[in-house]
Amino acid sequence: MRLKTKEHISLIGAGLSGPVMASYLSSIGFSTDIYESRSDMRTNLLSAGRSINLALSVRGIKALKDIGVYEKIKPTLIPMSGRMIHDANGDVHLQPYGQKKNEVIYSVSRSNLNKILMDYAESTYSVNFNFDHQLQDIDLNKLTLRFQNKDIPFNRILGSDGASSKVRDFISENSDASFLKKPLGHGYKELTIIPNNNGEFQLDSSSLHIWPRGEFMLIALPNFDRSFTCTLFLPMEGDNSFSYLDSEKKVFKFFKKYFPDTLQLISDIPGEYHKKPVGKLGSIYCSKWHYNDRAAIFGDAAHTIVPFFGQGMNASLQDCTVMHSFVKRYDGNWDKIFKSFSEKHVPNGHAIADMALENYIEMRDSVNDPKYKIKRELEFELENKFWDRFVPRYSMVSFHDLPYLEVYRRGQVQSKLMHSFILGDLTKKKLYEQIESKLTPIR
Amino acid sequence: MRLKTKEHISLIGAGLSGPVMASYLSSIGFSTDIYESRSDMRTNLLSAGRSINLALSVRGIKALKDIGVYEKIKPTLIPMSGRMIHDANGDVHLQPYGQKKNEVIYSVSRSNLNKILMDYAESTYSVNFNFDHQLQDIDLNKLTLRFQNKDIPFNRILGSDGASSKVRDFISENSDASFLKKPLGHGYKELTIIPNNNGEFQLDSSSLHIWPRGEFMLIALPNFDRSFTCTLFLPMEGDNSFSYLDSEKKVFKFFKKYFPDTLQLISDIPGEYHKKPVGKLGSIYCSKWHYNDRAAIFGDAAHTIVPFFGQGMNASLQDCTVMHSFVKRYDGNWDKIFKSFSEKHVPNGHAIADMALENYIEMRDSVNDPKYKIKRELEFELENKFWDRFVPRYSMVSFHDLPYLEVYRRGQVQSKLMHSFILGDLTKKKLYEQIESKLTPIR
Repeated sequence: MRLKTKEHISLIGAGLSGPVMASYLSSIGFSTDIYESRSDMRTNLLSAGRSINLALSVRGIKALKDIGVYEKIKPTLIPMSGRMIHDANGDVHLQPYGQKKNEVIYSVSRSNLNKILMDYAESTYSVNFNFDHQLQDIDLNKLTLRFQNKDIPFNRILGSDGASSKVRDFISENSDASFLKKPLGHGYKELTIIPNNNGEFQLDSSSLHIWPRGEFMLIALPNFDRSFTCTLFLPMEGDNSFSYLDSEKKVFKFFKKYFPDTLQLISDIPGEYHKKPVGKLGSIYCSKWHYNDRAAIFGDAAHTIVPFFGQGMNASLQDCTVMHSFVKRYDGNWDKIFKSFSEKHVPNGHAIADMALENYIEMRDSVNDPKYKIKRELEFELENKFWDRFVPRYSMVSFHDLPYLEVYRRGQVQSKLMHSFILGDLTKKKLYEQIESKLTPIR
Repeated sequence: MRLKTKEHISLIGAGLSGPVMASYLSSIGFSTDIYESRSDMRTNLLSAGRSINLALSVRGIKALKDIGVYEKIKPTLIPMSGRMIHDANGDVHLQPYGQKKNEVIYSVSRSNLNKILMDYAESTYSVNFNFDHQLQDIDLNKLTLRFQNKDIPFNRILGSDGASSKVRDFISENSDASFLKKPLGHGYKELTIIPNNNGEFQLDSSSLHIWPRGEFMLIALPNFDRSFTCTLFLPMEGDNSFSYLDSEKKVFKFFKKYFPDTLQLISDIPGEYHKKPVGKLGSIYCSKWHYNDRAAIFGDAAHTIVPFFGQGMNASLQDCTVMHSFVKRYDGNWDKIFKSFSEKHVPNGHAIADMALENYIEMRDSVNDPKYKIKRELEFELENKFWDRFVPRYSMVSFHDLPYLEVYRRGQVQSKLMHSFILGDLTKKKLYEQIESKLTPIR
């Protein structure tokens, strides 16, 4: 079925957010082509060189529901209700993410989700996929996209071509966009906990496991096949770093010292460690996400963030929701659509990039700090009393869809108030008064 | 004459600093090849798309003297002893740069200087130039430089390939270097004041002329052929911007209103304005200038700065002096050479980038502020009294060769002290005491 089309949009990148954006646009009458540098992952087995599983939460779910694909994805999701902390001494305890039954996040397979989204965009919305199309250049005068040995005309470009985005390079070169690339100095490596002999999960499957160790940490998310994907986050250089762990012996000693319980869970750590690549982590901030009415970027291309808030995919899918709302509001006026998207939404991208960095400290360090636990208890208590004003920052990010910038600002106010109360500078009565005067009701 | 060579170095970029670095290295026994993407400017007339003239000062002169080329360049220099301020009401007055007779900066032709440096590097040091060689990629495993249809082996790379440096991209992708690109939002356009009918300069040739107008400004530097090159600095967008001045009528009205005296000096302003391109301005900060012992960057590739301190070329030539000193100090240990260059000198690059931005405000705005004049007089007075401790920041940058970071720090201390004294918070006696306690003698 061909839709009656308004205009043609060229999308760059068939990752998670590309097919969702194309579906949104096709659903309101646009015809869409997606150009992807890689082969079709549905027919070619290949590693995208990216994380195996991801955490899906409210912002992502909203977009998936909007385009009507959520029911197809739901059966593949594994709910995680909190962080299972594995202490150095072997103690294990759960820190719930939220207070309500539905306040959970979901572990989902990146590749499976991507395949479902491509199939769905193709069959339901007639989105046209062009694989093995690596964008080389954008010619603004001729209005063509240059691929290897081929020029293809375009009207308008939406780029979700990832952290090394060509579309972003184009916007940056042709505008006054500021650009900041900030490597974290820490990398990651993925290891696998296979199911036990009975084919069962080896750890509790309804939580995200963390082994926080200060300067570094290990985490594990459950997979649908009852395995877990573990990710080791470690500095690139220095003591206890990827560059230090250069022999099987050192790797074994390191795991034995810091993560002794994993030696039973992962069959051959030194061997697997040796085989797996080290991924790099970092943040990219770009102050402008569009070039007049011709091109815009979204997803990782617009905001590459570190993975510690589990928001990379959710932020990217929310971009699609936001863009869709501007496309509808400013029907056909692409100058306004792109300008509004850029001006209104860039600060949200920066806010989640900052919060994701802050969360690394929380995950690898603070979760084991008694002060952190006191603060978490207080947060939940205050949320119970002021449910529409005081919502813990983690919950605002993961279970609400407030703009990230608003989350960031409210989080700062809340954090200061709690700090003053814990230090004894505020009585409980004063704390309550301050909450009512400084925090407006949410929506 | 072939020198007895130690090792081969591949330099990328034959701009001003490439031939100087190659000369330095060849002078101590290295063999050098320079690869340049453009044709040989000595045989092909072409615009490099860059400013026509530049200001040469102490740091640049030091490098030119070190390699022995200064005597060839000296005859082409035009000394400028201060800023000739052209007020909006037509008044003209001189603000000297320094207090001593030799405290002047020199206007010099970029293309002529470049040609002399290339000739000299070639004839005196047997530096081998390879033009029409655009670097595509660096292959670390094969140790080859990839040019269009040709791979050339290398040992070690020194990149001075400008603001869009490929060598910097390589370092950034393969390390944990942070990278910040900060466009100024203002651009520039060059216009010419030709000599008068008698072949003489139309303005005083021993100063740099400034027409400061707050949000924007015009400047003019003398050329050897008795013309002046004017540069209009203007916001890209908004009132009185390059995008606003889109018709000959608007351009004429704009010059008539803000720079009425130039209508006599420049023959057909609207016509020339229309023909000349708009150059963009911005700063690039990169936190690491090397990749282990294989590659390093210097010059604009390492620190793209705005032109308002007249230090772009001087900073780049000083890079050569600094690299040369490390090459000699750590003879053959390139790990140490590149690491020291990067760790010790990156902060200087950031400092001059910051100071150049601050100077835009000073040039287009503060020079006409009575408070600025009071501060300048006080600076000179204090320099006379404390010549080895208190040196005006402009003089530290232009007439001394202290590391830029030290200049920046001393400048902050001095500025605070002067501010307190002018506000009356410090007596003169206290001011003197503070200078002696807070500012150590220079060198």
